[in-house]
Amino acid sequence: MYRIDLNCDLGESYGAYKLGVDEEMLGRITSANVACGFHAGDPGVMRRTVQMALKHGVAVGAHPGLPDLIGFGRRNMDISPREAYDMVVYQIGALAAFVQSEGGRMQHVKPHGALYNMAAKSKELSEAIAEAVYKVDPELILFGLSGSELVRAGERIGLKTANEVFSDRTYQQDGSLTPRNQPDALITDDDQSVSQVIRMVKEGKVLTLQGSDIAISADTVCIHGDGAHAAVFAKRIREACESSGILIQAAGSE
Amino acid sequence: MYRIDLNCDLGESYGAYKLGVDEEMLGRITSANVACGFHAGDPGVMRRTVQMALKHGVAVGAHPGLPDLIGFGRRNMDISPREAYDMVVYQIGALAAFVQSEGGRMQHVKPHGALYNMAAKSKELSEAIAEAVYKVDPELILFGLSGSELVRAGERIGLKTANEVFSDRTYQQDGSLTPRNQPDALITDDDQSVSQVIRMVKEGKVLTLQGSDIAISADTVCIHGDGAHAAVFAKRIREACESSGILIQAAGSE
Amino acid sequence: MYRIDLNCDLGESYGAYKLGVDEEMLGRITSANVACGFHAGDPGVMRRTVQMALKHGVAVGAHPGLPDLIGFGRRNMDISPREAYDMVVYQIGALAAFVQSEGGRMQHVKPHGALYNMAAKSKELSEAIAEAVYKVDPELILFGLSGSELVRAGERIGLKTANEVFSDRTYQQDGSLTPRNQPDALITDDDQSVSQVIRMVKEGKVLTLQGSDIAISADTVCIHGDGAHAAVFAKRIREACESSGILIQAAGSE
Amino acid sequence: MYRIDLNCDLGESYGAYKLGVDEEMLGRITSANVACGFHAGDPGVMRRTVQMALKHGVAVGAHPGLPDLIGFGRRNMDISPREAYDMVVYQIGALAAFVQSEGGRMQHVKPHGALYNMAAKSKELSEAIAEAVYKVDPELILFGLSGSELVRAGERIGLKTANEVFSDRTYQQDGSLTPRNQPDALITDDDQSVSQVIRMVKEGKVLTLQGSDIAISADTVCIHGDGAHAAVFAKRIREACESSGILIQAAGSE
Repeated sequence: MYRIDLNCDLGESYGAYKLGVDEEMLGRITSANVACGFHAGDPGVMRRTVQMALKHGVAVGAHPGLPDLIGFGRRNMDISPREAYDMVVYQIGALAAFVQSEGGRMQHVKPHGALYNMAAKSKELSEAIAEAVYKVDPELILFGLSGSELVRAGERIGLKTANEVFSDRTYQQDGSLTPRNQPDALITDDDQSVSQVIRMVKEGKVLTLQGSDIAISADTVCIHGDGAHAAVFAKRIREACESSGILIQAAGSE
Repeated sequence: MYRIDLNCDLGESYGAYKLGVDEEMLGRITSANVACGFHAGDPGVMRRTVQMALKHGVAVGAHPGLPDLIGFGRRNMDISPREAYDMVVYQIGALAAFVQSEGGRMQHVKPHGALYNMAAKSKELSEAIAEAVYKVDPELILFGLSGSELVRAGERIGLKTANEVFSDRTYQQDGSLTPRNQPDALITDDDQSVSQVIRMVKEGKVLTLQGSDIAISADTVCIHGDGAHAAVFAKRIREACESSGILIQAAGSE
Repeated sequence: MYRIDLNCDLGESYGAYKLGVDEEMLGRITSANVACGFHAGDPGVMRRTVQMALKHGVAVGAHPGLPDLIGFGRRNMDISPREAYDMVVYQIGALAAFVQSEGGRMQHVKPHGALYNMAAKSKELSEAIAEAVYKVDPELILFGLSGSELVRAGERIGLKTANEVFSDRTYQQDGSLTPRNQPDALITDDDQSVSQVIRMVKEGKVLTLQGSDIAISADTVCIHGDGAHAAVFAKRIREACESSGILIQAAGSE
Repeated sequence: MYRIDLNCDLGESYGAYKLGVDEEMLGRITSANVACGFHAGDPGVMRRTVQMALKHGVAVGAHPGLPDLIGFGRRNMDISPREAYDMVVYQIGALAAFVQSEGGRMQHVKPHGALYNMAAKSKELSEAIAEAVYKVDPELILFGLSGSELVRAGERIGLKTANEVFSDRTYQQDGSLTPRNQPDALITDDDQSVSQVIRMVKEGKVLTLQGSDIAISADTVCIHGDGAHAAVFAKRIREACESSGILIQAAGSE
């Protein structure tokens, strides 16, 4: 049977700053990627996000990012693999303590923003991140861009992995996402977004911007959690998947 | 048999900034309080400090502080008990991930600087901190100023606690330390420091600045880890304790 | 002729985090207090806020705060007068560079949040802040709580000062604001807010929570810039002042 | 007559962390590049460094860096030219306020670490930085790697510039420094360092690692301020220059 996990970045508020419609999203997704204080999130936000996710039965994962709050972790930094390892261990641990103290169990780790993008293409960074996850807890699932170095590094070290796909981004021939600064990087039509996801899940294929199909693995779909439209679209894709016979469940469900 | 733990604040370097003679201290102490990134320490420093401590067979503890790197966590801040809880959970978790990934087991938690001092006198802050420690891991030992609110809060919630005493600080009638900004706050004579510790351990008494003895419990002694003199004094107190028939061992040793 | 300045805290966004309805407020106020990066604001936000303010002909001031982004500068910290001096000089300078590079001239300095409140009661902190302002530029106007230590310290050192009053806060017999954690601290009725301001300006009096009038100087009124209601109330108070014969103009206007 | 400026990075301490032998260096150099709080330095350190520099008659400049305290501003970050502009305006302003409040006048701006290196090769970043300097104060001198994009951008906008050379680094054919991670990047022999500087100043040439001479302009030499050897070498190069008939004076001296 076909199945898919719906994940969303949550807990991105910080102090007096509110971001996202977390509570609404939690009713629609199966996995929450919780910011860990480096690019977003503070200890109080982390606790409340974990509490809400557990209450909604949504699986919790760490969403470690670069130490760049002003840039929201979206600016590439020349960090060494060793530095990537250290910052991922640190952030997983910080979130794990909230999950543990609330009686839950962490399901996964998904690097954020520039760390995610740099890892997708760098074997060295990916191996450092995968090692960090594995050494903290080998039962954690590593989320990475479908078919990327990060997923491969996770598999090599013995982690369970989840290939992540995007509903609102177009793909290139090599399976990478069209960079945001290029035209046609974003899919703004909801029907097209939904169709792309269902086809990725059921056929294992996606039509690239260049016009031909490529094979793609889809274990989890990234759903955005900010903007007025976020909760509406989440509901939409969830219903479309279910009516197409795709089971919606967290990546770590048995 | 008399026994005492010798603890020291370690891992206080940060990026390009080096502080303390950590490697030297590790040969002399039994418990290391490792900074967790808020008042000092960065992820790389934390990893290396944990690795070194485990190599030397020194028990590892988290040393959570206020989010005040410029002030080294020494300036009181009006934080709520809930904020104290959150920042302690976060920091314990961050350090725990390094200990776990290096194959060790965390022994204790000792709040740092202003957080330690504020907790010593505040029942509310102490209960928040004790709850944070307990909910992350009820096997952890809570270190606090001997006889303080923090130790009492730890006991009430069911944690093992360690009453901490100071070799180089004078005491007031109520068991508090003479504030640093007062004359005679510091004991600068090594002989007097050593005698004070041995008497606290063996007799359970300390002579206050006001001239009379008060009862004091001594489970662990704080040894300073910076300054040229640090390693020399650590060696000195260790030898003096041993020759007085006091067993030097980590607070969590069976 | 009666006159009053309407000031508002602006530029409190940070990176991806948006706060306040700055553009709307700028059409209604005469002085903007711009956050300087310690409790809120980042360099890009500061530049854009200064550009907008100058475009609207609104006078620009620095709004220095405590180094506490998570707490939005609202948590008291035990800083020394020397530390207060240094952090105020730093933040005034940072903002001054944006004002200067955009061809403007800074009008005033108003400490933010906990720094403002601590200074209101502390002669030492107030003198340090006033000295910082004076030494950077003796032409700057120092904004402080009406009748507070901060205003007095500004006057003593030779600065022009502006006594700040609040439209939505109740007053105590000693001229201090009723603390936010007490009942009746806030005035939620707009009519009452407007009346309080007009009476403070024209009669120099305010009715305290205890039921009697006290004298109060009102040079500038603090208008809040967040919340859906902010812009509406700003328009309201502006119109009410004007129709009562009170001239609305920036504190530094000749 | 030949002349050269000797500059050194100072004020790199931070809170409890001490770095460098600033006081000793100030007796030997003519220009101080003072860290501005992003990669190093805090407001108190900035004030004290400015005070010391002015006391020694050493010209003061801002040393703005990337917002990366853990990485000491040495890790490249993908910042936009606009972000570079904003962070440079901010940091120049912060330092300027200390210089002004101490009765001095800022002489120059020298970007730090990764910002310096990225600017050396990027026309866009260099133009943004040069514009920031120019708009804050067109009298400031812009220090940049000799012959780099930064110096060219400074000249185009109308700033005075100073071509900076290094005594302890080897050069490539294109005038760039041999990257630190390559063998022979550093010159460890003091005689060779001194000779290289004197030849750059008097002959306008430097022998590259590839074995041929290239033309180089030398207005200012970077002297390192940390390490036990720093002050000794500074004295050495100063004396060698003087006895070779090279006048040692600040870049902005008439």
